[in-house]
Amino acid sequence: MNFRPLHDRVVVRRLTAEEKSKGGIIIPDTAKEKPQEGEVVAVGPGARDAGKLVELDVKAGDKILFGKWSGTEVKIDGEELLIMKESDIMGVIA
Amino acid sequence: MNFRPLHDRVVVRRLTAEEKSKGGIIIPDTAKEKPQEGEVVAVGPGARDAGKLVELDVKAGDKILFGKWSGTEVKIDGEELLIMKESDIMGVIA
Amino acid sequence: MNFRPLHDRVVVRRLTAEEKSKGGIIIPDTAKEKPQEGEVVAVGPGARDAGKLVELDVKAGDKILFGKWSGTEVKIDGEELLIMKESDIMGVIA
Amino acid sequence: MNFRPLHDRVVVRRLTAEEKSKGGIIIPDTAKEKPQEGEVVAVGPGARDAGKLVELDVKAGDKILFGKWSGTEVKIDGEELLIMKESDIMGVIA
Amino acid sequence: MNFRPLHDRVVVRRLTAEEKSKGGIIIPDTAKEKPQEGEVVAVGPGARDAGKLVELDVKAGDKILFGKWSGTEVKIDGEELLIMKESDIMGVIA
Amino acid sequence: MNFRPLHDRVVVRRLTAEEKSKGGIIIPDTAKEKPQEGEVVAVGPGARDAGKLVELDVKAGDKILFGKWSGTEVKIDGEELLIMKESDIMGVIA
Amino acid sequence: MNFRPLHDRVVVRRLTAEEKSKGGIIIPDTAKEKPQEGEVVAVGPGARDAGKLVELDVKAGDKILFGKWSGTEVKIDGEELLIMKESDIMGVIA
Repeated sequence: MNFRPLHDRVVVRRLTAEEKSKGGIIIPDTAKEKPQEGEVVAVGPGARDAGKLVELDVKAGDKILFGKWSGTEVKIDGEELLIMKESDIMGVIA
Repeated sequence: MNFRPLHDRVVVRRLTAEEKSKGGIIIPDTAKEKPQEGEVVAVGPGARDAGKLVELDVKAGDKILFGKWSGTEVKIDGEELLIMKESDIMGVIA
Repeated sequence: MNFRPLHDRVVVRRLTAEEKSKGGIIIPDTAKEKPQEGEVVAVGPGARDAGKLVELDVKAGDKILFGKWSGTEVKIDGEELLIMKESDIMGVIA
Repeated sequence: MNFRPLHDRVVVRRLTAEEKSKGGIIIPDTAKEKPQEGEVVAVGPGARDAGKLVELDVKAGDKILFGKWSGTEVKIDGEELLIMKESDIMGVIA
Repeated sequence: MNFRPLHDRVVVRRLTAEEKSKGGIIIPDTAKEKPQEGEVVAVGPGARDAGKLVELDVKAGDKILFGKWSGTEVKIDGEELLIMKESDIMGVIA
Repeated sequence: MNFRPLHDRVVVRRLTAEEKSKGGIIIPDTAKEKPQEGEVVAVGPGARDAGKLVELDVKAGDKILFGKWSGTEVKIDGEELLIMKESDIMGVIA
Repeated sequence: MNFRPLHDRVVVRRLTAEEKSKGGIIIPDTAKEKPQEGEVVAVGPGARDAGKLVELDVKAGDKILFGKWSGTEVKIDGEELLIMKESDIMGVIA
């Protein structure tokens, strides 16, 4: 992919219902803020903590859960993607 | 479980009345914010403090008390669970 | 007691008028926010400051003053108790 | 005195007009927030800064100026006193 | 260019539609806050973190995405440019 | 003077028009927040930064500029003075 | 000049249109917050970061851009000047 996120930013592809992991995580309709399933496309080099660079805990290819309103929409190479901070990601679906 | 929380996040299963510890903790009806009883299902690797990774104080299997409105609801493997930060947990029921 | 508070949290038993220290501390009726007298039942392992664990300054058995609206009410082993942070405690009655 | 303040808290006895230092500090009536004169009765062990305990700059017996609305009123051994943080104290009257 | 930004500030030339990378990033019309494409013209020496100077992750010539409302408009050598902080930049188009 | 300010506090005597430095600093009437001229009477031991005590940059006798609404008025030895933080002082008139 | 700014403060002389660098920076009329051109007259010793003094990046004589509403107006030796923090300065015109 021809886009390199800065710092602790992550590029995420939103997964449609069909692409979601089978028998896996289903977001209940009644949740206050429904988390969304996505796939990490690219990650930044990491954030700084007390003078040291701390690499991100997610990598390209990870399937993740993130908050519904997280991130900014962009279109890269004709595909709609999201740029968000790693702190907007709740966890990785193994 | 096929979900790995990031940082200081914890996956919690809400305990129903029957599953609660016998003779144990009962939340009074008059409490301003009623804490809830739950069981830790999975924990993240920990938060960073002054450049060092600090492991969480709870582990999978711990019975915990947490604030009623804490966490985000998700459905993993068909089960309704909560993802919250460790700081939302008040303590562990021994 | 079968409850272990996390971090800098403290479990406190509210003292009734009869249990208060004799000739001791009486909270004036006109105080804006009346502090309350209590007894520490259990303490967490401490808070982190600059990467080091700092043990709490109170211990089980201490009689303390705390702000009237501090803490969350819980019922443990049939007894109504409070869970609060150590910073809500003003001092120890010797 | 049978009360030990925690951290950077200080117990202060409010001085009445007669007890104030002679020829000393008079608070003008027109001041926006009138500082008050008091005497330190007991001090906590100090606050933590960057992992080190920093002892307080005031000690029992010091005559101090503090903001009018600072502190919480308590009655200890039948006497009305104030519990405040050291940062509420402006200085010491020599 | 005869302008040197301070600290973590970056001078950016807004790219018009024709200058944008071919087959590259298209900002969808429906995005809440549409990111814009630009080219870095000059960068400051970096920000300080825990006492150390941390160089910026972008350099002159980089094509970047930034938030639509980021930065302050200035005219340098007759050209309209933007001065923004590096944290307003989402990533670099490779 | 019989008053010792704590931490980074400074005691300041407001200068009247006659006492101001000749040919010196005149505050324009149209300034949004007019700075005032004063003389430092006493200074605290300094503030703490990252665990070290940092002495103040002003000393008794310095003529200073400070914000019009800075500080708290007190009367010490029959004289009206101001207690403010060093950060309220803009600079020293040489 | 007989004025010494404290910490990270800078004394700035606003440049009139005639004094501005030729062929240089022109502030567009439509800018939301128009930056202004000025000349640094005096600088403070620097700010503290993590216990170390960090000298300022500007020096007396530098031509700078700063936000229109930055700083406080003072009159020193009969001249109208501005006192602002270095963080209000966007960059140096070479």
